[in-house]
Amino acid sequence: MESASKVGIGLVGYGYWGPNLARNFIAQSDCELIAICERESQRALIAKNHYRTSIVTDKYEDLLSNPAIHAILIATPVSSHHELAKRALLAGKDVLVEKPLTQTVPEALELVRIAEESKRILAVDHTFLFTGAVQKIKDIVESGKLGRIMYIDSVRINLGLFQHDVNVIYDLAPHDFSIINYLVGQNPISVQAVGISHAGNDIENMAYLHVEYQGNLIAHCHVNWLAPVKIRRMLIGGTEQMIVYDDMEPSEKVKVYDKGIVIKESDANSIYKVIVDYRTGDMVAPKLAHGEALHTEAKHFLSCVKNRTKPIADGVAGLRVVRMLQAAQFSLRNNGMQVRIEEL
Amino acid sequence: MESASKVGIGLVGYGYWGPNLARNFIAQSDCELIAICERESQRALIAKNHYRTSIVTDKYEDLLSNPAIHAILIATPVSSHHELAKRALLAGKDVLVEKPLTQTVPEALELVRIAEESKRILAVDHTFLFTGAVQKIKDIVESGKLGRIMYIDSVRINLGLFQHDVNVIYDLAPHDFSIINYLVGQNPISVQAVGISHAGNDIENMAYLHVEYQGNLIAHCHVNWLAPVKIRRMLIGGTEQMIVYDDMEPSEKVKVYDKGIVIKESDANSIYKVIVDYRTGDMVAPKLAHGEALHTEAKHFLSCVKNRTKPIADGVAGLRVVRMLQAAQFSLRNNGMQVRIEEL
Amino acid sequence: MESASKVGIGLVGYGYWGPNLARNFIAQSDCELIAICERESQRALIAKNHYRTSIVTDKYEDLLSNPAIHAILIATPVSSHHELAKRALLAGKDVLVEKPLTQTVPEALELVRIAEESKRILAVDHTFLFTGAVQKIKDIVESGKLGRIMYIDSVRINLGLFQHDVNVIYDLAPHDFSIINYLVGQNPISVQAVGISHAGNDIENMAYLHVEYQGNLIAHCHVNWLAPVKIRRMLIGGTEQMIVYDDMEPSEKVKVYDKGIVIKESDANSIYKVIVDYRTGDMVAPKLAHGEALHTEAKHFLSCVKNRTKPIADGVAGLRVVRMLQAAQFSLRNNGMQVRIEEL
Amino acid sequence: MESASKVGIGLVGYGYWGPNLARNFIAQSDCELIAICERESQRALIAKNHYRTSIVTDKYEDLLSNPAIHAILIATPVSSHHELAKRALLAGKDVLVEKPLTQTVPEALELVRIAEESKRILAVDHTFLFTGAVQKIKDIVESGKLGRIMYIDSVRINLGLFQHDVNVIYDLAPHDFSIINYLVGQNPISVQAVGISHAGNDIENMAYLHVEYQGNLIAHCHVNWLAPVKIRRMLIGGTEQMIVYDDMEPSEKVKVYDKGIVIKESDANSIYKVIVDYRTGDMVAPKLAHGEALHTEAKHFLSCVKNRTKPIADGVAGLRVVRMLQAAQFSLRNNGMQVRIEEL
Repeated sequence: MESASKVGIGLVGYGYWGPNLARNFIAQSDCELIAICERESQRALIAKNHYRTSIVTDKYEDLLSNPAIHAILIATPVSSHHELAKRALLAGKDVLVEKPLTQTVPEALELVRIAEESKRILAVDHTFLFTGAVQKIKDIVESGKLGRIMYIDSVRINLGLFQHDVNVIYDLAPHDFSIINYLVGQNPISVQAVGISHAGNDIENMAYLHVEYQGNLIAHCHVNWLAPVKIRRMLIGGTEQMIVYDDMEPSEKVKVYDKGIVIKESDANSIYKVIVDYRTGDMVAPKLAHGEALHTEAKHFLSCVKNRTKPIADGVAGLRVVRMLQAAQFSLRNNGMQVRIEEL
Repeated sequence: MESASKVGIGLVGYGYWGPNLARNFIAQSDCELIAICERESQRALIAKNHYRTSIVTDKYEDLLSNPAIHAILIATPVSSHHELAKRALLAGKDVLVEKPLTQTVPEALELVRIAEESKRILAVDHTFLFTGAVQKIKDIVESGKLGRIMYIDSVRINLGLFQHDVNVIYDLAPHDFSIINYLVGQNPISVQAVGISHAGNDIENMAYLHVEYQGNLIAHCHVNWLAPVKIRRMLIGGTEQMIVYDDMEPSEKVKVYDKGIVIKESDANSIYKVIVDYRTGDMVAPKLAHGEALHTEAKHFLSCVKNRTKPIADGVAGLRVVRMLQAAQFSLRNNGMQVRIEEL
Repeated sequence: MESASKVGIGLVGYGYWGPNLARNFIAQSDCELIAICERESQRALIAKNHYRTSIVTDKYEDLLSNPAIHAILIATPVSSHHELAKRALLAGKDVLVEKPLTQTVPEALELVRIAEESKRILAVDHTFLFTGAVQKIKDIVESGKLGRIMYIDSVRINLGLFQHDVNVIYDLAPHDFSIINYLVGQNPISVQAVGISHAGNDIENMAYLHVEYQGNLIAHCHVNWLAPVKIRRMLIGGTEQMIVYDDMEPSEKVKVYDKGIVIKESDANSIYKVIVDYRTGDMVAPKLAHGEALHTEAKHFLSCVKNRTKPIADGVAGLRVVRMLQAAQFSLRNNGMQVRIEEL
Repeated sequence: MESASKVGIGLVGYGYWGPNLARNFIAQSDCELIAICERESQRALIAKNHYRTSIVTDKYEDLLSNPAIHAILIATPVSSHHELAKRALLAGKDVLVEKPLTQTVPEALELVRIAEESKRILAVDHTFLFTGAVQKIKDIVESGKLGRIMYIDSVRINLGLFQHDVNVIYDLAPHDFSIINYLVGQNPISVQAVGISHAGNDIENMAYLHVEYQGNLIAHCHVNWLAPVKIRRMLIGGTEQMIVYDDMEPSEKVKVYDKGIVIKESDANSIYKVIVDYRTGDMVAPKLAHGEALHTEAKHFLSCVKNRTKPIADGVAGLRVVRMLQAAQFSLRNNGMQVRIEEL
């Protein structure tokens, strides 16, 4: 397709998340929502009412065979992601899949391979990466001001909906995992998880996740559907500066603390003694970009499609998160044992 | 001793914590500070200046042989706790030991046994149990209003002093362990710990602790000397109510949320389905008792001495915390493996 | 009209606020949006697209002469309120007018008189009265638990839009005045105002308002478009309890403090001495009703129309606020002199 | 006196504040507490016990006639300030007087005149000026980064002690007035005050103060002994930046917002229209100096004494606050009428 023309979009799935995708893609100047595929008749009717100029169909094949459609957005239950994405890629379409990319690691691996071979764009909808807050933190990390990241601690808890098909890790941890991977810019080495179910079933409603990365770097996440207060707070400890990212703050979501320790070389006479000095300076809450994250994400995906560039959250990023979820699940069933990511 | 007379007190150790003990015991009407034992001459001089009517000596034997001394307060480094406490108990004195009770489990076991056999009071200085906040939470738990405790999550972090002899677990977790044990009123089953050192030595400065109790109850603690902000917050999730205990709040430290879930029996046709209902009501921040915790603790210890009653934080409570610390340390060195408390 | 049938609604003005009214009335089961009057063609087109079954017209007369329309909602600039409302009342329609009711006191007086004589419902859109927070505070006041209200202090500030036609008092104070009048349940005695313009014109962007009521009761409001932070906080000091209403709090907007003073009678020997005792107890943050205030308001207005009952914010309440605004404006131009409300 | 030698200090009054002055002056290396004058025998005994090497006397004349005393600190009730300070100055002593400087304006004027004529240092104990927070704000103002100050809004409220001799204005407003005068660096033009008493006497327990300065600058203070929560918050609106100074924040007391408006010149065709643009950038919470304000103040006073330099809070600053208090009191008794400062 030529860069100047509009990107033709097909959307499959018009349940909870599909309408948000439709709304944010339609708001871009360089795209057209050609068709929506939805099998459930009531939802199909709603889609038709909202987007009168779009085709609404219950046959996915209609999207695949339509030459006006360049890219397909997949917003269906996770169990169908692999098949729908695979067929789209094989039909020559670029693809954006709702998170998590797939249910299993082999499925994700196959999608990554097909996308690579067919030179198609494969993107995962890790929406948080497109918030002003995470974008700003990434900038700070890349500027080098933070120093080397030593740890990330994330708390994502509230009195939330108890899901019936997935546990709290599959529900909430993809957010933490995708953000943390993005910020540290490397593959995790191992994952450990402990958790508990209070609902009398085997679906954990609270869990603690511990991830090891290269270079003495750890990440820890507390995810919980049964907390009295809503907390969305991430601490990012760097060797030079430290960040508190509090998503519940109305305006000052990111606070950068010029705080830390300085490790001094000890002299020959006291070789076993480490000297730690404390450093504390100003705190800065940088101005963040406004706007809905999904709007920014749609713009980014369209730009990737037009310019054939790699998305921030590509198939490999999606695969990485699926690996971590699967490792966490295994650890959870084995008393929190350390599960190495490569072993999967 | 008779209940009406004054309790004679001997204090050993006048370093960091000793002066606090002296000040709070001297403020009680029913006690006399007979003698202070301090070997370091500069500190002994300060003690002498502060308490002109007390004997100041560098010989511990002077305290043990003095019949006017009924109870001995031990505020020396942990490595000396066992020996000093043992000699005091064998000399017929009641004893209050700074936390943690001892370095090792066998040492703590021996002290508990001697105290029992000699019918002496053995108390540990778990000061937090005597704060207005913890006392109020304990009242609420005992009233039954909270229901059954499902979990406790504690965060105790700040940019704190990097200790050179003990890691962050030994420094901070005794507070969490003593509070949690007190509130749940049972022995822990197992402990797991992961942590990391950023100071280039093997003394961990951040750690996560996971404790299992009977009855599907878990506790989790984040202790950290390298955090940009100071957080002292405990969540206590009960089946009927949930509590947020935020020690950094100037006035409303304890908030009781009438929030939770209701698990419903599912009908015959959907036997695998659990129905979860959400419940949310008022929040109450109860008025807390004022006053320094150590003052309340001194009063309590004196009452136990006079009335021969069991202290809230007795030797068994102290032993329990020592067991947990030792289990945590073992887990920490073994990738967070689950360490059962009984196995020690 | 019969209570069982639907209320026919006509809306005039489809600019900023009109669409909100339309959306919230259409969501009620017992009403029909018969017609929308909007002179500006672009807005009329939008209205037509949103409400395909409603008549869209640029002639107000079409609404007045339509017998299917029982009530008219007025969402036009304040300068037109008086004429539009008067014509609607004279045409036998019930009326809901956006705040403030009119520009001048005589205009408001005339509307109140006509509504009374014609036995029509005249309501003002003081939306805040229908929030869960204000409804709960009103309940507490009426229950007597708060005791007698001694003072109300309101701060309503942020970096807000500098209006070109009205000053910050006309923009923001109607909210405070309507809430305060509602809670204290009496007419104000006097108003004083001081303020300043920083925009180089004569439109004040910050002002302080001081209102006196019967019974030693005062209210004070700080309204400001040029503040670095957004604050929406009201203190309500009662003789028995005191309330903090913080509209920026995500969940605990209303906090009831069992705090206050007790004035004691002094004895004969010290007749000039007042003894003040301090009292402090629990704090309770009551659960508040959910839902959009405008939705609740629409339901209330429709109920008044069907059952011929007096609205919470009726013409007299609207007139009271107009009196206060006009008195504040006069005081502002006269160095904050005290302006008695009756004198207008 | 020579700059290298120690400053000899005499203190009169050892009640509530005197001990704080003694403690902070004694902690300086370049001063000696020669004598303490206290008439009440019990307090004199306490003073003697605390400062064994100082003379303790009940005769003020002993201080005045002692050539070793270079400066006198006055910490007695305000009614005695004028006489004690006058005698000290006439005896050739430098003087630091507790706030407010005197009860009346003529008294303050006389002290200022005598100090000037006799070339003695006359300082007032406006302690808040020496906090890290106010010092930092003053630096920012002087750096020009804030632009021109447009307004200052101060809230100083809590459930505080109801005084029996002075109202809430005399109790709390000296803090606000001294800080505000210091920051704006100019004389106030006028003061207005409204207030109320809820204790059944004529001592106001809550009041609002409004002050006008040159250059379209206003200040407003809410002082209140009967509030459910403790608030100590000052907004400082500059043309370039705005500051929130929240003294209740444990660490980030001063927040500097890069926020404001930009007034644009309107073009010829719309000469009556002001165009306001909004600007919002980063927020910075600068690191503040640690340490007790009174310690910094003692050091500053001693430096002024030794180097014969003008104190930050000199007699003229003290006089300015006394003028404002007297004007506020007059306005309070006259329905908040505007009282010009020059007219006193």
